[in-house]
Amino acid sequence: MEREKNLIDGAREGVITESIEDVAVDEGVSPKEVASGVASGTIVITKNRNHANIRPLGIGEGLRTKINANIGTSPDQVSLDLELKKLAAAIGAGADTVMDLSTGGDIVEVLRAVLEHSTVPVGTVPIYEAVCKTVRKGKRVGEMRIDELFEVIERQCADGVDFVTVHCGVTKRAVETLKQQGRLTDIVSRGGAFLAVWMSHNNRENPLYEFYERLLDIARRYEVTLSLGDGLRPGSLADATDRPQLEELIVIGELVDRAREAGVQAMVEGPGHVPLNQVEANVLLEKRLCKGAPFYVLGPLVTDVTPGYDHISGAIGGALAAYAGADFLCYVTPSEHLRLPTVEDVHQGVIASRIAAHAGDVAKGLPGARDWDDRMSQARKALDWKRMFELSIDPEKSKRYRSESDPQDNELCTMCGEYCAMRRVEEALR
Amino acid sequence: MEREKNLIDGAREGVITESIEDVAVDEGVSPKEVASGVASGTIVITKNRNHANIRPLGIGEGLRTKINANIGTSPDQVSLDLELKKLAAAIGAGADTVMDLSTGGDIVEVLRAVLEHSTVPVGTVPIYEAVCKTVRKGKRVGEMRIDELFEVIERQCADGVDFVTVHCGVTKRAVETLKQQGRLTDIVSRGGAFLAVWMSHNNRENPLYEFYERLLDIARRYEVTLSLGDGLRPGSLADATDRPQLEELIVIGELVDRAREAGVQAMVEGPGHVPLNQVEANVLLEKRLCKGAPFYVLGPLVTDVTPGYDHISGAIGGALAAYAGADFLCYVTPSEHLRLPTVEDVHQGVIASRIAAHAGDVAKGLPGARDWDDRMSQARKALDWKRMFELSIDPEKSKRYRSESDPQDNELCTMCGEYCAMRRVEEALR
Repeated sequence: MEREKNLIDGAREGVITESIEDVAVDEGVSPKEVASGVASGTIVITKNRNHANIRPLGIGEGLRTKINANIGTSPDQVSLDLELKKLAAAIGAGADTVMDLSTGGDIVEVLRAVLEHSTVPVGTVPIYEAVCKTVRKGKRVGEMRIDELFEVIERQCADGVDFVTVHCGVTKRAVETLKQQGRLTDIVSRGGAFLAVWMSHNNRENPLYEFYERLLDIARRYEVTLSLGDGLRPGSLADATDRPQLEELIVIGELVDRAREAGVQAMVEGPGHVPLNQVEANVLLEKRLCKGAPFYVLGPLVTDVTPGYDHISGAIGGALAAYAGADFLCYVTPSEHLRLPTVEDVHQGVIASRIAAHAGDVAKGLPGARDWDDRMSQARKALDWKRMFELSIDPEKSKRYRSESDPQDNELCTMCGEYCAMRRVEEALR
Repeated sequence: MEREKNLIDGAREGVITESIEDVAVDEGVSPKEVASGVASGTIVITKNRNHANIRPLGIGEGLRTKINANIGTSPDQVSLDLELKKLAAAIGAGADTVMDLSTGGDIVEVLRAVLEHSTVPVGTVPIYEAVCKTVRKGKRVGEMRIDELFEVIERQCADGVDFVTVHCGVTKRAVETLKQQGRLTDIVSRGGAFLAVWMSHNNRENPLYEFYERLLDIARRYEVTLSLGDGLRPGSLADATDRPQLEELIVIGELVDRAREAGVQAMVEGPGHVPLNQVEANVLLEKRLCKGAPFYVLGPLVTDVTPGYDHISGAIGGALAAYAGADFLCYVTPSEHLRLPTVEDVHQGVIASRIAAHAGDVAKGLPGARDWDDRMSQARKALDWKRMFELSIDPEKSKRYRSESDPQDNELCTMCGEYCAMRRVEEALR
């Protein structure tokens, strides 16, 4: 039976679809380049066939670095209204995608509302819903039925989710590698932890690995991008780039091959907590082991000591990762390691990630990336405050900061006042 | 006439002074290593003979990366009380030094108060006071008298300033290089701009260059560290690592030699606005051209578009610079390019810089640097919140964030609640 044609299959035959056209326009590259990246798997275009109200988003080699914002309820905080506010804050601040990671309240309803209201692609970690269902029935995580997990995946895809994180690489062998080696923080990925618990309870292989074909079949039907999650990512600097992490990454690399063979788009998730000197190597390893699949990094955080400021630690790691070739940065908010993010935390997290992504794009010489900086610097030279605000990464904050500190001379600011170097030096250099 | 013995002269003879002992204890290295660094000029110990109430601070190779916080009045904002609050905020947040950059109100009085209240070394840019005096007399910057400039330097040193920024490398030749090449943002250093204006007005060489011996004599007498300022630092990504910047750095390198010959400690200031991919080269250039003199970078900012968030842009550049070998990071606050910083901005700026410095220290493998991270990760694994707060870079913010979002189960947090990976996975990995 011939399989239904999807984006990769078409791209390989040189078909330029509307999605490819849209991405080419948004990125300022040729449709042919986008098609070629999709065909080889170095670019994914994330858009579920059933998700009508969004524009397809390209992620990968040669494209602008994208950023994701995680929202979602937790057992402690359940409010659909709050989630829609976080969604709006994320999109308003410039997130390219959002992930609904809800684990509290009516998870199905929240996801449907997010899908309906979002103007950007939406991702999920389906095992959260499957585990929550199990636990709410009074059962243990290990008692989650495999069919139930796949039913959740199928329903979320049917509802229009654009990409799903699936921790298929947490194999028995990888968990064994972790146990053998030992770790400071063991497993910090929720999905990874659920699977390890399930596998231990059932003494059985990871169902997302064992039944990977079933997953590919669902992804193919809905044109859902697989985000191969790093369930064994390091949760501390001490655990970075270690054996279990790499064992999992090797498996993920093999699964990328199988996704491509099946005509399914795949990207790969990466750490986590990584010291600055290991960031470049982590990007290189992903690109080599996963044959250039788009790399979606979670931060990375370059120190463990910054609760309240993990958005800054994540921006440092994210900028360097983007420069080294990471394609997609998952934001980290100031609330990481402390609480579920507030609306303001979401805003802060998105801005910090955008700074990292842009700094990386400039550094790697992405065509046109530095134009933004040059326009800002021209506005500065001209002391054109209106234009500086417009060009600011967060115009409202820029305006507010200045308005809270009025200078005597409206052309200057309260930092230097009449001693402004920009103004003073002009005559001397003529 | 034999010159009075000072720190470098002593170190070269193998004398282990109290300052060297103090630095060795603080840094966990041997006094011999500190003395050797001081003797060769790769380490400076900043403490004016006349500044009693501070502990000497080592800056340079093999030592923890230090951070500086700029405070000071401006023509628009003059309040001694506010400056003392900013000083307390800077020290409270962990600044290793402060610079008083006052240009408003009674500059002498503010500096004396800062020197009296500070428990960390204090730096200044003496030309600010000299120019302000001139301008307040209704004169033009070009009419500042050379003697007046040196009198200000001498008085500030006599008052106890520990290090002074002097833009000695802004020579006629360097300014000519700038004119010839052209730049997007010309000169953004206030000190550099004042000197360029003065030189243009008088058609004369930079007095801090022409009379460098006079400067060395003052510095020697008070054991003041020279911070050779980069008056021609790039103020935009477009201008980074260009001819005038490098021309100035070559001159500064020569001046470092002369300082060492004169028994004067010297460090070198660096940019500014630098794309991420040029940060490492900038550190290498300074280390080569200035023979390993401690490098004091201003940020660097890795993008021009982040007013309101320049502390994050500066943390990205600062972390990479520290990893590459920069020794001393000047903080950037969220208010940079918008206004004089508030007390809260000072706090934010110091924390962001400390994150960068620590991330750099961990990455370059500074002995013991990662212990802090490991202790935090151990506390996380143990779900020991009290310990996590204690180990946080900003314990108060950590506590506040968590207290604003109470979990049902006190051992967990509202991010994952009962789905906490840390707790769930333990059994499975036994």
